[in-house]
Amino acid sequence: MSKRPIRVIQWGCGLMGQIMIRYLRDKGAELVGAIDRNAARRGLDAGEVARLDRPLGVRIRHPEEADAVFREARADVCILCTRSTMPELVDSLKLAAHHGVNAITIGEEAFYPWTTSKALTEELDRLARSSDCTLTGSGFQDVFWGNLIAVLAGSTQRITRIQGLTRYNADDYGSALAQKHGIGLDPETFAARIGASNAPSYVWNSNEWLCARLGWRVRDIRQQLLPTTHTEALRSTSLDREIPAGHATGMKAVVVVETHEGPVIETHCEGKLYAPGEVDLNEWTLQGEPETTVTIRKPATPELTCATVVNRLPQLLAAPPGFITTDRLDMAPHVTRLEVAA
Amino acid sequence: MSKRPIRVIQWGCGLMGQIMIRYLRDKGAELVGAIDRNAARRGLDAGEVARLDRPLGVRIRHPEEADAVFREARADVCILCTRSTMPELVDSLKLAAHHGVNAITIGEEAFYPWTTSKALTEELDRLARSSDCTLTGSGFQDVFWGNLIAVLAGSTQRITRIQGLTRYNADDYGSALAQKHGIGLDPETFAARIGASNAPSYVWNSNEWLCARLGWRVRDIRQQLLPTTHTEALRSTSLDREIPAGHATGMKAVVVVETHEGPVIETHCEGKLYAPGEVDLNEWTLQGEPETTVTIRKPATPELTCATVVNRLPQLLAAPPGFITTDRLDMAPHVTRLEVAA
Repeated sequence: MSKRPIRVIQWGCGLMGQIMIRYLRDKGAELVGAIDRNAARRGLDAGEVARLDRPLGVRIRHPEEADAVFREARADVCILCTRSTMPELVDSLKLAAHHGVNAITIGEEAFYPWTTSKALTEELDRLARSSDCTLTGSGFQDVFWGNLIAVLAGSTQRITRIQGLTRYNADDYGSALAQKHGIGLDPETFAARIGASNAPSYVWNSNEWLCARLGWRVRDIRQQLLPTTHTEALRSTSLDREIPAGHATGMKAVVVVETHEGPVIETHCEGKLYAPGEVDLNEWTLQGEPETTVTIRKPATPELTCATVVNRLPQLLAAPPGFITTDRLDMAPHVTRLEVAA
Repeated sequence: MSKRPIRVIQWGCGLMGQIMIRYLRDKGAELVGAIDRNAARRGLDAGEVARLDRPLGVRIRHPEEADAVFREARADVCILCTRSTMPELVDSLKLAAHHGVNAITIGEEAFYPWTTSKALTEELDRLARSSDCTLTGSGFQDVFWGNLIAVLAGSTQRITRIQGLTRYNADDYGSALAQKHGIGLDPETFAARIGASNAPSYVWNSNEWLCARLGWRVRDIRQQLLPTTHTEALRSTSLDREIPAGHATGMKAVVVVETHEGPVIETHCEGKLYAPGEVDLNEWTLQGEPETTVTIRKPATPELTCATVVNRLPQLLAAPPGFITTDRLDMAPHVTRLEVAA
């Protein structure tokens, strides 16, 4: 059977989008459109922005022109690396569905948005069914907060509790993220500005995904946003200042899920300034019979995020229409060529 | 749809079989037969041997009576916890297939026996197809040397090499295993008695499974059996003697696979006496873009082995007929009830 490259629109050409463009090229996909809202990238060649060795002949266009990009590109799929939440993503996903183009986003809420953005997700699901395309969310969490745990669950007789810890350096992603994590705030200000928020954190959605994957029904889910602190002063590069001992070095989101079936999932997601010796970490313990702890030290989060999405593309093209969260698909396969039947 | 318990024959009622019997009971399966060659267990109730709180009303019978057990039991599946290699397992697997009963074994070679026991496996495959049942191998390696790596491969852009290390205490499984691992031999005797063997070690088969799972074709596979040593004397409990410094404390099997697609898999499987501070370990690194290391400290190997097999049962009953190695199935799900449509 003859094959042709998968045709991709990359929407969002920042740090993640650039890795994505490189990975797509290396696996033989064809970039047929590129969209970014950053004025500095407008009109530039997507290959040059992604620092490939040669231009791709695809100019980056502004989101205002997105409709034209979709109309002209005849794409199989659009990869969205723009924002985190469903309200922020919905217009782009609708546009893709409107053009009958499959879409996959690394926006964290989209990984399992069925309860946190119920109405929006159901609307997108209907739209995608009616235009025969598939919408989904994936990324780091798809493997490291998701299928990695599911595969260990398959080797476990009885699960009473799943305890997850994921930690990243909140100083690595610029001052906006550092501020969003409350870095530098004294405890009272942190409690008022950050701790009082009830926006679901990333692991809220991934814990719901895990329940769906393991066949558990959520009975109760709750979240706390706590400051992380250190006993000595730490310097923030992104904020370019010293954070006094006892002030917030970042934020820890603790999400606890209780299920009708009994097992509890408690996940700690820490984004903070690192004290000497601290590194990125992803560690999960399945308690019950027997108990198993899996540790991934220093996961390369951005690269793992992009590789997972790229490996998901052939599955996405073959999936049933609708908003299909990846708990309903097999684990992402390791794909070497991004091709589809011609 | 009405459901009934899965009906199971447990063949092999030693350490592993006893855990299996307990796990089956806890998930609602019905034990309908038990076979063991150990004269001391003959005629005993399988539930009592497995130290359940009450007898199961199933007497353990000798392998000579296996045909009668199969004839009377009307089982859905037979779980085999007897021996390691295909020549040792073939008669039991044939008997199950002859009776049209699905079978799953923890015999390590059966995990992927297509090249190491080609003729036997193809014969069993034909037999199982003709009697419409499924035969397979599973156990610890199914997850920890298999799908755990496959799930990480799905988050990796490009794999150049997979490096695995798995370590167990060779003093924990009795004197026969300790001797088979050459514990106590001086280096020359080890080389002559153990190192010269060309029997495929466990990770030979699991590395071939991994290639099949990842879509790679084996170009070359080779194995070395090396002594492990320690700088000080260590005491062997199973052999009840002191092992001098520099003598073999156990065996390390190193299996290297080269593939036509490029990636190399190198696995070190160490079974040895532990020096102070050493524990069971399962650690794999995927090298390429990016690099990821996964660590499982102190895996509960026997329990994980049995839980994986038990979780595989519903899939096995639904699988196509033949010798179906688990590289062709989805990851083992986490199952809570062992039931089948009535």
